[in-house]
Amino acid sequence: MHESLKEKVLEANLDLLRHKLVIFTWGNASERDPETGHIVIKPSGMPYNEMKTRHMVVLDADGKQLEGDLNPSSDAATHVVLYRNFKNIGGVVHTHSEWATSWSQSGRSLPPYGTTHADYFYGEIPCTRALTKEEIEDDYEVNTGKVIVETFRDLDYGSMPGVLVHGHAPFTWGKDGRDAVHNAVVIEEVAKMGFRTEVLGHRDPIEQFLLDKHYLRKHGKNSYYGQK
Amino acid sequence: MHESLKEKVLEANLDLLRHKLVIFTWGNASERDPETGHIVIKPSGMPYNEMKTRHMVVLDADGKQLEGDLNPSSDAATHVVLYRNFKNIGGVVHTHSEWATSWSQSGRSLPPYGTTHADYFYGEIPCTRALTKEEIEDDYEVNTGKVIVETFRDLDYGSMPGVLVHGHAPFTWGKDGRDAVHNAVVIEEVAKMGFRTEVLGHRDPIEQFLLDKHYLRKHGKNSYYGQK
Amino acid sequence: MHESLKEKVLEANLDLLRHKLVIFTWGNASERDPETGHIVIKPSGMPYNEMKTRHMVVLDADGKQLEGDLNPSSDAATHVVLYRNFKNIGGVVHTHSEWATSWSQSGRSLPPYGTTHADYFYGEIPCTRALTKEEIEDDYEVNTGKVIVETFRDLDYGSMPGVLVHGHAPFTWGKDGRDAVHNAVVIEEVAKMGFRTEVLGHRDPIEQFLLDKHYLRKHGKNSYYGQK
Amino acid sequence: MHESLKEKVLEANLDLLRHKLVIFTWGNASERDPETGHIVIKPSGMPYNEMKTRHMVVLDADGKQLEGDLNPSSDAATHVVLYRNFKNIGGVVHTHSEWATSWSQSGRSLPPYGTTHADYFYGEIPCTRALTKEEIEDDYEVNTGKVIVETFRDLDYGSMPGVLVHGHAPFTWGKDGRDAVHNAVVIEEVAKMGFRTEVLGHRDPIEQFLLDKHYLRKHGKNSYYGQK
Repeated sequence: MHESLKEKVLEANLDLLRHKLVIFTWGNASERDPETGHIVIKPSGMPYNEMKTRHMVVLDADGKQLEGDLNPSSDAATHVVLYRNFKNIGGVVHTHSEWATSWSQSGRSLPPYGTTHADYFYGEIPCTRALTKEEIEDDYEVNTGKVIVETFRDLDYGSMPGVLVHGHAPFTWGKDGRDAVHNAVVIEEVAKMGFRTEVLGHRDPIEQFLLDKHYLRKHGKNSYYGQK
Repeated sequence: MHESLKEKVLEANLDLLRHKLVIFTWGNASERDPETGHIVIKPSGMPYNEMKTRHMVVLDADGKQLEGDLNPSSDAATHVVLYRNFKNIGGVVHTHSEWATSWSQSGRSLPPYGTTHADYFYGEIPCTRALTKEEIEDDYEVNTGKVIVETFRDLDYGSMPGVLVHGHAPFTWGKDGRDAVHNAVVIEEVAKMGFRTEVLGHRDPIEQFLLDKHYLRKHGKNSYYGQK
Repeated sequence: MHESLKEKVLEANLDLLRHKLVIFTWGNASERDPETGHIVIKPSGMPYNEMKTRHMVVLDADGKQLEGDLNPSSDAATHVVLYRNFKNIGGVVHTHSEWATSWSQSGRSLPPYGTTHADYFYGEIPCTRALTKEEIEDDYEVNTGKVIVETFRDLDYGSMPGVLVHGHAPFTWGKDGRDAVHNAVVIEEVAKMGFRTEVLGHRDPIEQFLLDKHYLRKHGKNSYYGQK
Repeated sequence: MHESLKEKVLEANLDLLRHKLVIFTWGNASERDPETGHIVIKPSGMPYNEMKTRHMVVLDADGKQLEGDLNPSSDAATHVVLYRNFKNIGGVVHTHSEWATSWSQSGRSLPPYGTTHADYFYGEIPCTRALTKEEIEDDYEVNTGKVIVETFRDLDYGSMPGVLVHGHAPFTWGKDGRDAVHNAVVIEEVAKMGFRTEVLGHRDPIEQFLLDKHYLRKHGKNSYYGQK
């Protein structure tokens, strides 16, 4: 079942490789079927250049495996938590992309230093708190999802489609898998430029009105970027 | 109309991709027809690998759309202001290239640290002041053009074919679209090397006479670089 | 003899090039035949794009050349020492990859700053002490192997499949040549991200329980990453 | 005349592009014919992808143009000075490669921080003094050569096949054009790793005996790297 969705998810995963966000078997992209709520995700530990549509794994909304001979990504439980709590998203991506991961490792949120950031992320990209020993030893992947949800208690996941997990790496999401990949590329770009902005001696985020202008000219009802 | 110019503008835009100055739909290149003063520019929000000659948009000197089914680049108004004020230019480029954008985000002008810089930019590449709240909320793209023009009040746009817009990214120009792309590549190179020069502990621009030598051996009536 | 092993060793060496860990004739990969204990290694000073299976050199467990018209890699003696002392390894790789070499040159061990590191290296990747004048002048390559072994006196080479040689560059190992290459890629990735993590202002390794979780979900009897 | 040498020089120049040491028309490689002392060099300002064997320019030992419809590289006079003073070299290369140029711009000599450096450059790679106003305004390219020669008054150009010109960029040389290109690649690699070594907090060159070991195992009468 979900054959066309499997194709889309395969392509989203291969895009991670094309954008040089992953090597070997690292990273994973998934997408949710809007009707059934089923989640299609890549299998665990399979190299990208061997992956075919038939290897994609189908899970139900609770993460129970419905189809597929292979184990799902070891991070599948995190995806499930995100889909359950972020009702309007349709795709999730996790990578260890080099710049965003460096920020995650530093335990720092990424301030909006310019309009590239503002075009996609409406404010500082948050870094979660570190997980406790108990949260790591017991149900680690579920708790990774939960700490992301906790981080968004007062944040809008719709206008902030990504997060840096403390000591780990980024997760991004979007309206589908392709959109989540897009946001994974952008978080990497702004992490890279943010690093260099700081080395050049700058530490102030852009003004709120510039952030508003760029975010809102691309998103929302008065947007005017792109075509109708 | 302007079919051959559309081809040139398409190529200039694709060159941005080839030189890795843009990803997705970011960036834009335009060129002005010297006879009519019409401006050909890429459409807004279209991926580079789908763009064809027929998608190019034609504007008059005031930015009014003369031809094309698609909306022009959202930054078209900035291009229009630059063409109106910098009489002798024939091409304009805007990118979010990673190194020049990092300098823009830092709000710093880029000092001439070596002869690579001096070969193309005759002095410090200026960073504009930040736009005010009013300038951003009302006619943002026009005001981006105006703040660039203001920055060049006492500068020669002919020998300084680029600028860093505060908190945003670079604009470059030249005698045509291809030349503006060329300058966009060079600003990226010197932004990268300038960053590293500073990290190595150096903060003094090169001497004026070395700047003169390199700029003037490539440009102007006594130049001797290249072929006649 | 060892024709299929030679093919594997050639491929492992070519993978170093594909992963951009080596240029010119730099670097070397070897593999040990588990039955005879013979070692197949690349020849010294031969460009990767000219290397064929027939150029591979066969050594016995003491480093004596058994087959091959060409001299073995100048670092062959280091490989021999590692195979002799690390009984369970089947492959060794040496590169001058740019990030791991920068750490080696700094004389610093590489702290585990994130889960990418923890997925492969169970703790800080050690940097050896500097060799003495005597160790360098007499039997340099053997002594390079010995100082690595000395560094692992209280470390488990099984869960720490790599080392930074002081003032020199990394060595990695694994169950075969391919696995050693894999670890050479990972040491480069974590060296790069570790550098950036420090520049971003962070200097604390991740907690032991997060290190345990990630290492042990991929390795050992209770691992659950990948397929059975 | 010198048809086969022209082919070699063309290839050496194209190698600069392949190794990503140059963009556009930047950089130049030349080679000297050992019998006649004639120098073959690339033309000025011609893009690499349009360059053919027939475009190569032949100069005599004094820099007088013997053959070729095009002007020689604007840096030809510097090459001539180097060939005249460094009797045993057969090739010269100049690039604005990004890392070595950053060191040149910082006005700093590049200390030997590791064995990669020691394998090719026997000690600190010197940075010249800055040229004076007079030296720049009058016979600039000749004086660039002269300041390099001055820098090597007490240095052996044979074991130190490169230099950083203050505020400008590197020059390298070797037994032929291909060898000079090789050294241009290596200077770039060690400039990159040296930068990172310093950022990681390290500022001491390697010990003389390690420098000796690595340089001498590759060069000179007791070398044992590579094949006989």
